[in-house]
Amino acid sequence: MISQKKNSGNAATPDVPVKIGRAHPVTLREVAEAAGVSTATVSLVINQKKNARIADKTRQRVQDAIRQLGYRPNAMAKTLVSGTSRFIGLVADGVATTPFAGQIIHGAQDEAWKHGYALLIANTEGNRDLEKDAIAMMLEYKVRGILYSTWFHRPTDIPETLREADFVLVNCFATEPGAACAVVPDEAQGGHSATQILLNAGHRRIAFINATIPAPAKDGRLQGYKDALAAASIGFDPDLVMEAYPDQEGGYGATEELLKRNVTAVYCYNDRMAMGLYDGLREHGLSIPDDIAVVGFDNQEVIAAHLRPPLSTVSLPHYELGAAGVRMLLGLDEAPNDSAVKIACPTIERASVAAHSPV
Amino acid sequence: MISQKKNSGNAATPDVPVKIGRAHPVTLREVAEAAGVSTATVSLVINQKKNARIADKTRQRVQDAIRQLGYRPNAMAKTLVSGTSRFIGLVADGVATTPFAGQIIHGAQDEAWKHGYALLIANTEGNRDLEKDAIAMMLEYKVRGILYSTWFHRPTDIPETLREADFVLVNCFATEPGAACAVVPDEAQGGHSATQILLNAGHRRIAFINATIPAPAKDGRLQGYKDALAAASIGFDPDLVMEAYPDQEGGYGATEELLKRNVTAVYCYNDRMAMGLYDGLREHGLSIPDDIAVVGFDNQEVIAAHLRPPLSTVSLPHYELGAAGVRMLLGLDEAPNDSAVKIACPTIERASVAAHSPV
Repeated sequence: MISQKKNSGNAATPDVPVKIGRAHPVTLREVAEAAGVSTATVSLVINQKKNARIADKTRQRVQDAIRQLGYRPNAMAKTLVSGTSRFIGLVADGVATTPFAGQIIHGAQDEAWKHGYALLIANTEGNRDLEKDAIAMMLEYKVRGILYSTWFHRPTDIPETLREADFVLVNCFATEPGAACAVVPDEAQGGHSATQILLNAGHRRIAFINATIPAPAKDGRLQGYKDALAAASIGFDPDLVMEAYPDQEGGYGATEELLKRNVTAVYCYNDRMAMGLYDGLREHGLSIPDDIAVVGFDNQEVIAAHLRPPLSTVSLPHYELGAAGVRMLLGLDEAPNDSAVKIACPTIERASVAAHSPV
Repeated sequence: MISQKKNSGNAATPDVPVKIGRAHPVTLREVAEAAGVSTATVSLVINQKKNARIADKTRQRVQDAIRQLGYRPNAMAKTLVSGTSRFIGLVADGVATTPFAGQIIHGAQDEAWKHGYALLIANTEGNRDLEKDAIAMMLEYKVRGILYSTWFHRPTDIPETLREADFVLVNCFATEPGAACAVVPDEAQGGHSATQILLNAGHRRIAFINATIPAPAKDGRLQGYKDALAAASIGFDPDLVMEAYPDQEGGYGATEELLKRNVTAVYCYNDRMAMGLYDGLREHGLSIPDDIAVVGFDNQEVIAAHLRPPLSTVSLPHYELGAAGVRMLLGLDEAPNDSAVKIACPTIERASVAAHSPV
């Protein structure tokens, strides 16, 4: 029995909306009576009709009555007048399985609320049918627009129904160039920054353990590594680039090969790999950062800051991706549709790289 | 420029909803013309008016026209008729900072959609002002009810405005008993199961590293440990219960004290502690599970399954908490308000406990 409502003791059933016992909602008429005006006047004040001539004193009386009685205007009714709702839809995959989607949600919501929009979030976990239903639902609620987001940075085809609304791709981009506005992390800059942490500490022979899985992150993070070495006048040695599956097991499994490379530092494709590599290096009796310095990528929650030693890494800007997506959707930020807008990946320095240069 | 809509090349501005160029939405009139009936008939079919006499053939013609033209009924308009929307509100803290909130969202959404409701999610990250705004927004959208959830299991006071709707507490419970319906994890059963994993492997001297922070999980997980020992006719030794801060650093810091206890197995308050303890035990040259068996709690994403060796643990049922919360809200599950409904925590066995009993 749901019965914690004021004066309520009634069961809620799925089909019949509970009326009996529900806290009696304040009506427009009660507001009008309290303010001593007509209901028409109250509605004009609520809907902020520009050309309605209402004395400031009257408007004030109505607003006071609304506040005192706790009247809640019906957002749905307002929508019918304006044609679009104050909703922004957010389609997200992987909300339940990664911490990244949650940060996109956080950033998108903060920005949306700043401009008076509420977020209508749908989690698809990558299921195409759920996604279709989610977009249809958002269109039926007349959303102002839709953010279509993925938990890892990748190309995506655009669901046909998405085109019925304004939309922005977040952390993904259209397979056909120029087909959509998109905001993505700057992988190449991130890879450059990750490598730079090691260069700044004096390292010259730096290995990069890249991912085996094709992805924009794989290409971008490698490009950044090459750019940083070039800027430091260090020749690129393909032999120092290895590949492994991008998780703890992959990083651990790469240990033997890495040690053959005789390097003083290694930059891993992501923090999960670095976590596995830590275990591998320990088993060889090597200490981080003295025997070998390690840098990761992602600044992943519950891992990066809590390894021994804490991991220097580069942060994926998921919060900012969500916020920027909303600003582009609302036309507050430039939204080119010939190329994706790139967001910088900040550097996070911790103890896995020694400040002093190695001997 | 947002211009990926069909035939569109117009900027979206925050205040003026874009009309020009937006894919022309199909109107009720077009459906009526295609079906050769009046708009009134179409609207009767859409709103499924019970007592409206419409020939099945006519109803079918209208439904075919709706499908062929891709007409989208206005969900907002339906709401004005019914009084409540097909929304269920979900207030969640910690969506951006923990993987747990995402699993509550996933479970709540799957269950809500099953019954034709969409989820209106607000992430508060524990901010009381955001929370107040979120609940007000949900009430203005006439939600069917609200799930009020926390990312860790704890008592909570009930925001006054929450009482204006049906609501269920998810992963938290009212400070005043009987004040609200709630669904929470069964911590005592979980603690019992965690300890049982070790008992089944033949361990008799089992330490428990509990959290320093007061919480229902702290009391429940200790109770479960005591219950499991009692059921195995093993006397409770308070000296085997230690306390540490519930993260990696806390678990690592407890290593020395643990080794003084001369135990063959240890059950940690959570997986993060176990992860830190792994590092501490390795530094003492001890191997898991041969020298000491380890069990955690939470089955935390990206940690539990990826430690070396993978960690045996007990899973927090966040998905099921979200789903059960929706069923209680809709009156599909019994929702007592004198005590919280407890959801079982499943056992996950991995390699951190040897199958055979120790010598």
